[in-house]
Amino acid sequence: MTVVEVIETNSDRTDSLGCGPLRPPGAANFLPLRQQIFEYVRAAGLIARVAVAKDLAISPGSVTALTAELIDEGYIHESAAPRRDADSGRGRPPVALGVNPTAGYVAGIKLSDQAHAAVILDFAGNRIAEAVIPRKVFHQSFSQTVDASEEVLRVALAQTQLKLTDLNCVGLGLPGVIDNETGVVPWSPLVSERDFPMRAALRERIGRPVEIDNDANLVTLAEMWFGAARSLSDFVVVTIEHGVGMGLVLNHRLYRGAQGLGTEIGHTKVQLDGALCRCGQRGCLEAYVADYALVREASTALNWDRQRATEPHIMLESLYDHAKAGNAGAQAIFHRAGRYLALGLANVVNLFDPSLILLSGERMRYDYLYAEEVLSEMANLTLLSGHTPPKVEIHAWGDLLWAQGAAALALESATHTAISGSA
Amino acid sequence: MTVVEVIETNSDRTDSLGCGPLRPPGAANFLPLRQQIFEYVRAAGLIARVAVAKDLAISPGSVTALTAELIDEGYIHESAAPRRDADSGRGRPPVALGVNPTAGYVAGIKLSDQAHAAVILDFAGNRIAEAVIPRKVFHQSFSQTVDASEEVLRVALAQTQLKLTDLNCVGLGLPGVIDNETGVVPWSPLVSERDFPMRAALRERIGRPVEIDNDANLVTLAEMWFGAARSLSDFVVVTIEHGVGMGLVLNHRLYRGAQGLGTEIGHTKVQLDGALCRCGQRGCLEAYVADYALVREASTALNWDRQRATEPHIMLESLYDHAKAGNAGAQAIFHRAGRYLALGLANVVNLFDPSLILLSGERMRYDYLYAEEVLSEMANLTLLSGHTPPKVEIHAWGDLLWAQGAAALALESATHTAISGSA
Repeated sequence: MTVVEVIETNSDRTDSLGCGPLRPPGAANFLPLRQQIFEYVRAAGLIARVAVAKDLAISPGSVTALTAELIDEGYIHESAAPRRDADSGRGRPPVALGVNPTAGYVAGIKLSDQAHAAVILDFAGNRIAEAVIPRKVFHQSFSQTVDASEEVLRVALAQTQLKLTDLNCVGLGLPGVIDNETGVVPWSPLVSERDFPMRAALRERIGRPVEIDNDANLVTLAEMWFGAARSLSDFVVVTIEHGVGMGLVLNHRLYRGAQGLGTEIGHTKVQLDGALCRCGQRGCLEAYVADYALVREASTALNWDRQRATEPHIMLESLYDHAKAGNAGAQAIFHRAGRYLALGLANVVNLFDPSLILLSGERMRYDYLYAEEVLSEMANLTLLSGHTPPKVEIHAWGDLLWAQGAAALALESATHTAISGSA
Repeated sequence: MTVVEVIETNSDRTDSLGCGPLRPPGAANFLPLRQQIFEYVRAAGLIARVAVAKDLAISPGSVTALTAELIDEGYIHESAAPRRDADSGRGRPPVALGVNPTAGYVAGIKLSDQAHAAVILDFAGNRIAEAVIPRKVFHQSFSQTVDASEEVLRVALAQTQLKLTDLNCVGLGLPGVIDNETGVVPWSPLVSERDFPMRAALRERIGRPVEIDNDANLVTLAEMWFGAARSLSDFVVVTIEHGVGMGLVLNHRLYRGAQGLGTEIGHTKVQLDGALCRCGQRGCLEAYVADYALVREASTALNWDRQRATEPHIMLESLYDHAKAGNAGAQAIFHRAGRYLALGLANVVNLFDPSLILLSGERMRYDYLYAEEVLSEMANLTLLSGHTPPKVEIHAWGDLLWAQGAAALALESATHTAISGSA
């Protein structure tokens, strides 16, 4: 592995190139060395300088100089202590580096159709508090959404010694289409308004920097930072719950698309003029696979009176029980949803050729979604089924994983501001 | 813009990370400085050292040292000459750097259903020869494919003073699923065998290094190196001709997927249990949009006798003429193909959120494919049609563009070997 000098680029740079007959050299965004070292120390827990230099292929002199800066500024500290895991107390180098957990704090908030959740992390990534509150209003207004965000955050904070002003950054996740760059929410199924400036409103309310993103991207960040995918460079996360979402990681980075609206697999069309979707269009994958798609056929399958107005998640539970008990109509609903899910996953494989697909969501306990026959149909719908299809893993998760992803978003932003902003 | 030190990574590196609780710093592949400078000089045509240093944010000392090496090795030379374009003869610095065109040569070969083509480029990217020969056999065997590749290459070479041994690398493109990494072709509509080692066979036949890739990727490389997209970092190319292909450029690089089989939009499923595709599966986009899909309905629309065994491209021409003359059946065929094309493009937008889609192919002259109504239906099938849909540009092209892409592939490989291989 050679050490070379490379230029830090920014997005403006592209525009100034392209004047010649041939392609300009590829430009990539990468992290300043200070931040690389800081994040590597955080990932390692405790690590000797010499190991940082070796693993990152940076000269020992640069590591010494940059870690001295980071120690002076209070972001990392020297420690003689063994690793926190009980199994590795001895044989460590006498002086190791670790992130100073009290160098900063962040929060992550998840808003969803059932409940709202929040977690507080220290700068080393340790979770120091968590809270879940039930959702009060079904069709929330924009201002009620800001209220709910603040409320669950304060409940989590109350379990700590921290005040709002101690938080370097707050990450907020909600379902729907979220513009991560502008902080505007064009559409969320939780909120009655459209195109509302969620990030600006929450920032004003709590007086702290805020980052926002959609549920699928945050689940993906959580898998990258804390989950099974943390050593993979390229993978896809598909989330199935109230809707169908997707997160795409290419070369260790979340891919967001040109307008920050990328990877909306739930709204790819799987049938021309097909079933009606919540987004107002027809034939979206979501309209065959998501909860509401199943629930709206349930009254036909089970001869229910539509006027009973049962809660959707109760209807879904009941439909599932009937399918397991042998009701042919209920089984037909799950069977078709499973086949369309297989089709959607096969399309992801045909388009991205990922090494791993993580199916992630609270509804993952419904067998039909990960039944052997669905995965085998996915393989059959993949071009060249003779090739090894990508691994598919199922991760059922609760409210906190997504909130943890929102906290990871905040930690990334806070780290960047703290470690690189002043460099 | 700051200059920072960054590590060159390789793909093995990922596997050695991921031991800690948090995501390791993002790792990207980037070019060594020597190659960056070389490619930047090639892109510029002629450029002063000071401009290289400024544009790439590299210290003038490093530029002087590295360009001295490249001059010693014969890859670039100093020149007092004006730029080749007539409009900028004066005001240039007295000494500029340019790529030495005779430092090396590459060839690009395109195999397709109608004709085979080849181009020869010098190391500066200038095309110095080209050749097109008609395809002789419809269902070619693997060894006939190797014969045809060698034949068209020799016809192009015969127009120059060069011998086979003067070529640093040969790029070969053919339709189908091509494994760029192993050089094996799992399936091509041109060839009767499957899983044949095309790269190894051609390399053995001509005794030169060979790179192979599929048609859509090569058209995309040509657009990146020579075409309208050369200043864009992220875009999608969709090719429509005998099949439907796609190339995806993310951050100035062609995305190939985990197994090198990525971005097969033609085989994404747009209808469960739908129309039969050449790949043997049902409901692929290609089975509604590609030539053969239209041709197989033509005999119904036009009351043709199937036994007449007309050439497919003649049937397609005739179908098109009938549609323009008002034949309802022929119009219905093009109308549906156009709607499915809109659906396929909308799926690309929903999944990638690209800034530009280039529709590229020899059949782009059929209006139905780029009719206003198709593009407007695409926008309607895109989530949040209120947002600006990405720009769609139509590029009709001939045999040579794709061959030029194959040559770009060869030039990239030859440059890397020559400039970085020994560094």
